[in-house]
Amino acid sequence: MSRITVRAAVRRYRDGAFVSRPDVVAGEEPLEIRIGGTALSTTMRTPGADIELVHGLLHAEGIIASRVDVLAVRYCAGVDEAGQNTYNVLDVSLADPQAAARATQPRAFVTSSACGVCGTASIEALRKTVRHPSPAGPVLQPGVIAALPDRLRDRQQAFSRTGGVHAAALVGSDGDIDTVREDVGRHNAMDKVIGAAMLADDLPLADRALLTSSRASFELVQKAVLAGAGMLIAVSAPSSLAVALAADTGLTLIGFTSAKGFNIYAGAHRVAGSGA
Amino acid sequence: MSRITVRAAVRRYRDGAFVSRPDVVAGEEPLEIRIGGTALSTTMRTPGADIELVHGLLHAEGIIASRVDVLAVRYCAGVDEAGQNTYNVLDVSLADPQAAARATQPRAFVTSSACGVCGTASIEALRKTVRHPSPAGPVLQPGVIAALPDRLRDRQQAFSRTGGVHAAALVGSDGDIDTVREDVGRHNAMDKVIGAAMLADDLPLADRALLTSSRASFELVQKAVLAGAGMLIAVSAPSSLAVALAADTGLTLIGFTSAKGFNIYAGAHRVAGSGA
Repeated sequence: MSRITVRAAVRRYRDGAFVSRPDVVAGEEPLEIRIGGTALSTTMRTPGADIELVHGLLHAEGIIASRVDVLAVRYCAGVDEAGQNTYNVLDVSLADPQAAARATQPRAFVTSSACGVCGTASIEALRKTVRHPSPAGPVLQPGVIAALPDRLRDRQQAFSRTGGVHAAALVGSDGDIDTVREDVGRHNAMDKVIGAAMLADDLPLADRALLTSSRASFELVQKAVLAGAGMLIAVSAPSSLAVALAADTGLTLIGFTSAKGFNIYAGAHRVAGSGA
Repeated sequence: MSRITVRAAVRRYRDGAFVSRPDVVAGEEPLEIRIGGTALSTTMRTPGADIELVHGLLHAEGIIASRVDVLAVRYCAGVDEAGQNTYNVLDVSLADPQAAARATQPRAFVTSSACGVCGTASIEALRKTVRHPSPAGPVLQPGVIAALPDRLRDRQQAFSRTGGVHAAALVGSDGDIDTVREDVGRHNAMDKVIGAAMLADDLPLADRALLTSSRASFELVQKAVLAGAGMLIAVSAPSSLAVALAADTGLTLIGFTSAKGFNIYAGAHRVAGSGA
């Protein structure tokens, strides 16, 4: 069994009785990210697609803009009690030594991930740093959008075994789902998808949508905007700041998506027949 | 309307047709926390119970152990474009100037909240810093546990309006639900509950359980252990590291809790009739 899912023994209560049975839970391990040997951050993540995760995370943090900004990414150090490599420490060599020095300058710790940009004044700041103008597309048919959560679920391998993993994916202008990534953290799943797109030289996402199995926080909207996507489709609810940032940056934001329908919170012009 | 929920206009797609209608989304705003005027961290949170949130967060970070460690917490600075106080900046005065200096020492940024303690070696470190020995109780009846999610949902006011807010709560040894707090971030909701308990001079939680509407991450188990709770009950799935930490620290960890039943991942002796 991989480290994406981990066996656990549980005592299950059902119909008034207890039984012991084997269970499977989602893998969660710390990933320490270093830049040129200096610790940058530690994130709790589901192991797998770590290289993509690091690319996506450094992109969201504004440290890199494209794959050429990264010379190499290596697993390093980090041995467990048995002296085995934990594969939980990644060292990134940046092409620009000044960028490396800037990135690892000490700063006060940030509680919420990727929360360097916050609040009304900061939406303004983010708008200035957005690298890609809001794309024209995609324009999706409402029936295509409503079908996405069920189609995503069919491809959530770790979720189907554990019930405890979020997923993110790319959606093409034809509604095809691509690049599905899973993680215990919804922001990590999104970083993995955007990192994979970067490694395929596929940023900005332009006429693609991003899809998340979770709710849409400010942070996910921020990542979608920075990746140049036209649309973020969430299975669950958006927050107030997510709606504000989407409206302000021209991103189409869709929430509460299911086979029954969905809500458009911003950018209705990218949904065919919406009347906007 | 408070800032806990915010009005939004949506274009809703249902049964093949679009309609415009008013909607309500969960409030999400940045909260900057300062110690003696120096920025410590910024967290995205649902406004409300901010003082409790700060107490709980500083407790989880190991900066304070009880309410007497805090001299004062004040909203300060932070005006919006209209010059109005945003109530998004809180300054904390600590009783111990050395603790304040230690807390605000610059360090590399941490991606995931409260992730100073990570991995196998760090579980060891956490065990050493746990302030309270694992309590004997509570011992709950399985029927009481199975009923908790529905009873919590009855008290999730913001969730019922937005569908986008997590909740945490205290559960007494009689199964009574107390101190329900809501937030877009599940870790914030838990910090608010633990902070409220601290302000009521009610730590360690000893014979109480903590309840979360979300999944059980490493981080939530960490907070429960540090607060001296005997049990963490989650509506959704636990992660592998959450199970490992619970088993290692003597916390009872229950997941996938619903009216139909639940799974015990660690510490079955606190569930009556479980046979452990």
